[in-house]
Amino acid sequence: MEKIGFIGLGRMGKPMAANLRKHGFELVVMDLNRAAVAELVELGARAGENVAQIARDCSIVVTMLPSSVEVEQVALGADGIFANAARGSVLLDMSTIDPLATDRLEAQAREHGLSVVDAPVGRLAEHADRGESLFMVGASDADFARVKPLLDAMGTTVYHCGAVGTGGRTKLINNYVAVTLCQVNAEALALSQRFGLDIRKTLQVLYGTSASNGQLRMNFPNKVLAGDTTPGFTIDLAHKDMALVLGAAHAAKVPMPVAAAVFESFSLARASEYGRIDFSGIADAICDLAKIDRARVPKGWTAS
Amino acid sequence: MEKIGFIGLGRMGKPMAANLRKHGFELVVMDLNRAAVAELVELGARAGENVAQIARDCSIVVTMLPSSVEVEQVALGADGIFANAARGSVLLDMSTIDPLATDRLEAQAREHGLSVVDAPVGRLAEHADRGESLFMVGASDADFARVKPLLDAMGTTVYHCGAVGTGGRTKLINNYVAVTLCQVNAEALALSQRFGLDIRKTLQVLYGTSASNGQLRMNFPNKVLAGDTTPGFTIDLAHKDMALVLGAAHAAKVPMPVAAAVFESFSLARASEYGRIDFSGIADAICDLAKIDRARVPKGWTAS
Amino acid sequence: MEKIGFIGLGRMGKPMAANLRKHGFELVVMDLNRAAVAELVELGARAGENVAQIARDCSIVVTMLPSSVEVEQVALGADGIFANAARGSVLLDMSTIDPLATDRLEAQAREHGLSVVDAPVGRLAEHADRGESLFMVGASDADFARVKPLLDAMGTTVYHCGAVGTGGRTKLINNYVAVTLCQVNAEALALSQRFGLDIRKTLQVLYGTSASNGQLRMNFPNKVLAGDTTPGFTIDLAHKDMALVLGAAHAAKVPMPVAAAVFESFSLARASEYGRIDFSGIADAICDLAKIDRARVPKGWTAS
Amino acid sequence: MEKIGFIGLGRMGKPMAANLRKHGFELVVMDLNRAAVAELVELGARAGENVAQIARDCSIVVTMLPSSVEVEQVALGADGIFANAARGSVLLDMSTIDPLATDRLEAQAREHGLSVVDAPVGRLAEHADRGESLFMVGASDADFARVKPLLDAMGTTVYHCGAVGTGGRTKLINNYVAVTLCQVNAEALALSQRFGLDIRKTLQVLYGTSASNGQLRMNFPNKVLAGDTTPGFTIDLAHKDMALVLGAAHAAKVPMPVAAAVFESFSLARASEYGRIDFSGIADAICDLAKIDRARVPKGWTAS
Repeated sequence: MEKIGFIGLGRMGKPMAANLRKHGFELVVMDLNRAAVAELVELGARAGENVAQIARDCSIVVTMLPSSVEVEQVALGADGIFANAARGSVLLDMSTIDPLATDRLEAQAREHGLSVVDAPVGRLAEHADRGESLFMVGASDADFARVKPLLDAMGTTVYHCGAVGTGGRTKLINNYVAVTLCQVNAEALALSQRFGLDIRKTLQVLYGTSASNGQLRMNFPNKVLAGDTTPGFTIDLAHKDMALVLGAAHAAKVPMPVAAAVFESFSLARASEYGRIDFSGIADAICDLAKIDRARVPKGWTAS
Repeated sequence: MEKIGFIGLGRMGKPMAANLRKHGFELVVMDLNRAAVAELVELGARAGENVAQIARDCSIVVTMLPSSVEVEQVALGADGIFANAARGSVLLDMSTIDPLATDRLEAQAREHGLSVVDAPVGRLAEHADRGESLFMVGASDADFARVKPLLDAMGTTVYHCGAVGTGGRTKLINNYVAVTLCQVNAEALALSQRFGLDIRKTLQVLYGTSASNGQLRMNFPNKVLAGDTTPGFTIDLAHKDMALVLGAAHAAKVPMPVAAAVFESFSLARASEYGRIDFSGIADAICDLAKIDRARVPKGWTAS
Repeated sequence: MEKIGFIGLGRMGKPMAANLRKHGFELVVMDLNRAAVAELVELGARAGENVAQIARDCSIVVTMLPSSVEVEQVALGADGIFANAARGSVLLDMSTIDPLATDRLEAQAREHGLSVVDAPVGRLAEHADRGESLFMVGASDADFARVKPLLDAMGTTVYHCGAVGTGGRTKLINNYVAVTLCQVNAEALALSQRFGLDIRKTLQVLYGTSASNGQLRMNFPNKVLAGDTTPGFTIDLAHKDMALVLGAAHAAKVPMPVAAAVFESFSLARASEYGRIDFSGIADAICDLAKIDRARVPKGWTAS
Repeated sequence: MEKIGFIGLGRMGKPMAANLRKHGFELVVMDLNRAAVAELVELGARAGENVAQIARDCSIVVTMLPSSVEVEQVALGADGIFANAARGSVLLDMSTIDPLATDRLEAQAREHGLSVVDAPVGRLAEHADRGESLFMVGASDADFARVKPLLDAMGTTVYHCGAVGTGGRTKLINNYVAVTLCQVNAEALALSQRFGLDIRKTLQVLYGTSASNGQLRMNFPNKVLAGDTTPGFTIDLAHKDMALVLGAAHAAKVPMPVAAAVFESFSLARASEYGRIDFSGIADAICDLAKIDRARVPKGWTAS
């Protein structure tokens, strides 16, 4: 069995690494946060000394880091993964980063006889806890087969989207739609509230037409409409993903006027201090800013 | 059984009236288009001479007209429905109009001892043909019970949204979301195309997350993605409905920045002569204008 | 000298009529507000009994009314201007209305042997008080010559934009730019404030480049930046004009994504109860909503 | 007199350096483009061997580079300016970059006993040729006094905006407004064209009201409206600056919905291959995309 390096034990990375251990993978972990490392050590992982040593020891190194800056920091340079890994090793980057950064990483990896797989994570932190994440994977067929057992240990749904770089691109498209649905639903519900409609009737109709959507059906009734905006996925993170989407779209010359309008709405919400609540909470932000009563459904309500 | 007047035999009104006849309703019809009237007469309807006579003869008058201007023309004035109908009669307006116009009609109807029901129609023209429409109804409980048999003859799904005026308002909210989903999906697919992804992979992922939505699941694969943009519902009509949405939102002081961005995108498509194609065709318009290859899936494709 | 009818003595109409009187025009006036009529009578005007009588008595009838609904009410119908005026008379409509309504009026006027001039008013109410208004005029050359003395009595700047309908269209374009400049400046100043820049330095730079604009140079320092948001021209009125702009643009198939974004920003400001302040106050609204300190310059400050 | 290093001899940097030479400054220059270096050597400059040597030789080093990536490359690292310059030296960065990068540079310069001045350049390349640029300067008073003679040699207008970082921030605000004015004017002119108005009449009115702006008065009649879209400043560069504006605004939590709409309009123009024309050419792009006749004025026309 391959020895796995795992760099980045944050809110998502830690449970993902834990699930790898639970499935018996030999693991060398690393993070600035010693407590997180200690937790993994307790589960049988080894604490890595530094990136170079992890790269030398492990044939697959997973990175789960905040942005392309950190990924490039651990991948590049004399002390980085690429300079120290054995030929044939794989960098499995599961961070959500600019796809052009993934392209650059891939080009540099190839020069070292290494390969890159981009496999960003879908769904929420609580899914990661339960090993129920979804992964969008960009990889050669051979590399995909190689990382598949790891992904199966961390999640329940794995999409092989195509060659390296397609995983991250697919995630951006997916998150663009998911975040935008929150905004669209929020505007619709604000209108319903201002019209004085019974929000349950409005929902019932929307559920029965082509206007139905995953955010409205699954996320909203359990989160913002139930008055619960503790974050699964925060407005700040949604805003960060939309920045990646728009950056990638502008680099590729794809006009996305609705994405831009959504981005600004989330920006206003952040300026008004709604950044740390669940992204469904954009519905509350919009209602509050426009002095409209928040939309709520009774506890336990479901559309009949 | 009540005698039914039916004014407005256009692309939607004609099959709706025909379905009323097929269910045995006694019908007096009217339209500027004599051929449409003749078709209904063939089915056993009587051709009304003028609005006043229809109002005197029928206890329920259905209107299915292009805008509030036409509805007010037939409802108001010395020769209109309100001045000539017997007390207790009902105006069942199934047009999609400004909800403030519905409110004005209702106030004037009440002065004549009449009542109004607003029951705009959901789904497409082909559903109307088959008697499979969806209705969003604003009515008192008594009036709802009274018009329900008519609605059941013309459609399969009837939502009683609340008092008079709630049917039209609910339809605007519903169409805002449905039209916006077309634009959101179009931007997402344009990005996928420019990224060089396999559109089927992108769709498969979107179908499996909270980004899933009715337009993407049901309408797109059968229409624009299959290269078929013959209209169910045109970009011009979607644009008209968005104008009603934004007008109502502005009157109610509800900011809808995404609705506004969608509206302008549809406006650009219309300026570039895409107005008469199916509203899913906004995906083609966006790709064409940005010089991106159109997104297509093979005939008969479904997400596995 | 021609006898002049004047219908609509509101905040703008009253001083305009007064200035006509001061220049010796024979005037018959009308308004629902008796106090306003009394003021004009005191200045030597006659109070008209009804529209029909004014139309019969006067060879030029000025209308200065809130919207096309009111203008059409007084122009059309058996008791309206067109049915009662002598052939060769002129309707001088100075209201700001939908240009398509002007076109309809013009067509109907012609059938009665009458003509229409559209001459909406630029600048603020206080300019109207002082007879310093600006007029954008759509008229045949002959009609322009005929109404020119009246316009000269009420204002200082008269633009003959072309045939009937061009005055109102030009005003919409002008107000689109002027209102949008408020929003653009507001965003720029909010950014300057959040950046912690000295607002006077920012203004000094903007005044010295191609970013300079009339709103920033003339209106802002005297109004919002001086802490004075008593209205010259309210956010509500700016919003109303933008509705006319967007309505006309959509009818003409002209996409205006920036106009749409501005409109929504003003809509949010109105929803947050900034509607009745001066339209430069959009700068305060934007700062307040985003929790940014308002931009202010010291009293009497001017860019050196 | 101080010895001046100058790194970056592109379309703007080369004439700026040349003007320094013309005013007698001792100059050591550097660029990847040997021809540009040779031109400066011909004017009496010395060709620098590498960044470290320039930093050791010169007490002021000017950088005029495409983005923060290049500026950080020459400033940081063992071979960079900061590691090699004598204490008390100044990095005069005249590039247009992310202001947060300027802040980072400043912090690192201080650790080496050095200081940073940010002085991005306003106006066009042809102004740089003639030594008529405008500079927005962020600097301590002492540093400002020190670099002032250089700036006076390269331009005619120098604004001291405040401490380090304020120059770049002011430029972003300025360019946001200037670029947005192009879009606003373009929408206004497209509407005028579609309305069938005489564009000269429209311009004449706009010039006479608070809608007047620098772009419309100075740039448009000499560029796009005269049919000349050879670039002063391209749509691509305007788009790049708007990306910096929006990036900085989002980092600072300032919602800018109009900036976002403008950005997308420029993005669409780029996707349709208008990227390399003058930014006033957005007026042509908008008209072309919406199938509206381009706005033009006769050669030599000026508003009377």
